[in-house]
Amino acid sequence: MEGVARDESRPAEEIRRGIADGTITIAHNRMRKDGRPLAIGLGLRTKVNANIGTSMDYLDVEKELRKLAVAEEAGADSIMDLSTGGDLDSIRRELISATRLPMGSVPIYDAAVHAARSTGSICGMTPASMLDALEKHLRAGMDFVTLHCGVTRAVVETLSRSDRITDIVSRGGRFLATWMSVHGAENPLYENFDRVIELCREYDAVISLGDGLRPGCLADAMDTAQLHELMVLAELARKARDGGVQVMIEGPGHVPLDQVTAQVKLQKELCKGAPFYVLGPLVTDIAPGYDHITAAIGGAVAAAAGVDFLCYVTPAEHLCLPTEEHVHQGVIATRIAAHAADIAKGIRGAREQDRSFSELRKKRDWEGQLAGCIDPTLARRMREAEMPHSPDVCSMCGDFCVFKVADTESPPRK
Amino acid sequence: MEGVARDESRPAEEIRRGIADGTITIAHNRMRKDGRPLAIGLGLRTKVNANIGTSMDYLDVEKELRKLAVAEEAGADSIMDLSTGGDLDSIRRELISATRLPMGSVPIYDAAVHAARSTGSICGMTPASMLDALEKHLRAGMDFVTLHCGVTRAVVETLSRSDRITDIVSRGGRFLATWMSVHGAENPLYENFDRVIELCREYDAVISLGDGLRPGCLADAMDTAQLHELMVLAELARKARDGGVQVMIEGPGHVPLDQVTAQVKLQKELCKGAPFYVLGPLVTDIAPGYDHITAAIGGAVAAAAGVDFLCYVTPAEHLCLPTEEHVHQGVIATRIAAHAADIAKGIRGAREQDRSFSELRKKRDWEGQLAGCIDPTLARRMREAEMPHSPDVCSMCGDFCVFKVADTESPPRK
Repeated sequence: MEGVARDESRPAEEIRRGIADGTITIAHNRMRKDGRPLAIGLGLRTKVNANIGTSMDYLDVEKELRKLAVAEEAGADSIMDLSTGGDLDSIRRELISATRLPMGSVPIYDAAVHAARSTGSICGMTPASMLDALEKHLRAGMDFVTLHCGVTRAVVETLSRSDRITDIVSRGGRFLATWMSVHGAENPLYENFDRVIELCREYDAVISLGDGLRPGCLADAMDTAQLHELMVLAELARKARDGGVQVMIEGPGHVPLDQVTAQVKLQKELCKGAPFYVLGPLVTDIAPGYDHITAAIGGAVAAAAGVDFLCYVTPAEHLCLPTEEHVHQGVIATRIAAHAADIAKGIRGAREQDRSFSELRKKRDWEGQLAGCIDPTLARRMREAEMPHSPDVCSMCGDFCVFKVADTESPPRK
Repeated sequence: MEGVARDESRPAEEIRRGIADGTITIAHNRMRKDGRPLAIGLGLRTKVNANIGTSMDYLDVEKELRKLAVAEEAGADSIMDLSTGGDLDSIRRELISATRLPMGSVPIYDAAVHAARSTGSICGMTPASMLDALEKHLRAGMDFVTLHCGVTRAVVETLSRSDRITDIVSRGGRFLATWMSVHGAENPLYENFDRVIELCREYDAVISLGDGLRPGCLADAMDTAQLHELMVLAELARKARDGGVQVMIEGPGHVPLDQVTAQVKLQKELCKGAPFYVLGPLVTDIAPGYDHITAAIGGAVAAAAGVDFLCYVTPAEHLCLPTEEHVHQGVIATRIAAHAADIAKGIRGAREQDRSFSELRKKRDWEGQLAGCIDPTLARRMREAEMPHSPDVCSMCGDFCVFKVADTESPPRK
């Protein structure tokens, strides 16, 4: 608690109060002796998560370890392992032991992949296998776990009456809804929520209530299905808190820019200020290859409106598994969104960082600027690729640099 | 007028009314026989401008011609030639004859560069040389010209009492303020505004009233100097309209995210709805190398609040003269911001484009998606660099693709 308070330059008492009233969570599984606790929530710096993990087509753990290192180097605050290819248990172990950052996962992926391998269908999952996967991930040290407990039969029934274009786009939500439909059963993570609470309390892990019905395109945003699930999540959040477990709520998704703030206010109000963790939101559907930018736009506006935790989106979203370079781009774009929002939110130190940086710019202190910017390596590479003839300016303005003109101009020769 | 109305899917009468009341401009110099007129303003699609041009350090016109082609290919709506290096007259001629897009310029650069070459100082400019530069650019066919007429002695006096960090960051504004200080004289573009109007009317060019005192860092945003200049611009906009000349207002600059909407509302109110043309705004100062992203965040929010015309910012901003790749990145990022804003503004066709695209996504119609997205070449290259084993999914989710699961899952083998 003291360390976290120091990192955030906030009084420990404020963090303690935030945890007590549910507006702050500290992600830190008690199995992770060397893990660095991370506080997320009201009044704190907006945090950035990077998703990594193998897929069925690309299952090289070495690559994922390199992506982990890239994400950490680029300044991610946490990592999620979303692996669905290869030896999932061993990959999880390798990733978690390679970092001190908080790590999260989606245990239902694990249950679904194992069912698909052993029975030919994700519907081979059982309630027990889903809870077992959760327990296994907690034992492995996951600091937060995404659980799509809000995809209930009633919510799916609401969805079935909707005219959505992209239906369900959350993988966890899709797996559960399909399983429920094939078996004619309720969502086991909803039905056994008391057991979920018990397990998470045992490991002091944070429940991240997944938005299984998040909109997958702008046209689907803020429909009755999404709102119905959010109402269920609000209720589950209350139960989790009452059960002594910390909880975050996950959010959209694809959302038109003019709806972003309303979505945040609605979630915050319904869920009594629980930390809000969003993927994006992406403010257009049509920009695959640039979804780190569409997400940075939505994420900045969302975080300025109160979102506490941004999941990065990489340029690879909707196209392919991200490369190391995509991971780097995704983390930096999301950090920019988070920082712009922190300035808007009035987070201590955010505005001051820009002020100091701008003082260096005015002084044409290039070394200071290159060292102090969000990606020093890239900025230096770009500047050095096109050096100006005068070292105190840049190659765009040359000696017509506004700061140099102000410092050096004198009357013309007669 | 008819062609413009068709391009925008708006009734010609609406465009005509917008021009009459000054909320729409059509950039089209009468010297450009083959130029494509472009309407900018209320109720129309948000437009994107790309700046190109030589610098004193990099003056190869061939490179700038390639950047022009890249910008056009990437979907820029207009081009500004900001050249300050090499044979400016010949570069201007070559660029303008290489495109049908509307083109703008900043004539004071031309006057300043010539003065610096012939007298050793930009202060060697004269009122006559400034007006001559304007006339030369108009004769060359510039459809819109940025003129920093609002940097008056009174405004500079207000600035001198401020505690700005970055003082003046507009090159045109800096040149004029320095010239005024050295000569103890009023801004010739302000003092001779009647002549400016006369010249622009003769060529039917749009005056883009430059914001010479736009904030160059977040800390400087919305200070008395910026507001004083805006008040002068509002007055000049009225004079220009009364004189039969179309006018746009240029805007910031570096602005904290929580101030962007207020800045737009203020400008629109003061300037009676004149089209607003902004550079960025950049929502943080600390991200050189990524200023296309910081500008996309600010630009999307600004355009959603009413901005009509976004000037792109490339990744090279604050570091170096942009390369062709930077130009491409800058145009695409700005188009994303403009499109996200058009959806928010309710511009006809914007939302529908995302809807159709999402229908292709749901159907796993990869050819349709790759052809329909904002940068088909990049999206195809990324997808093909990491092909999935099943051609109907992507390499991130593989057969766990939510749409495929929904279509194909069946009960498990017993």
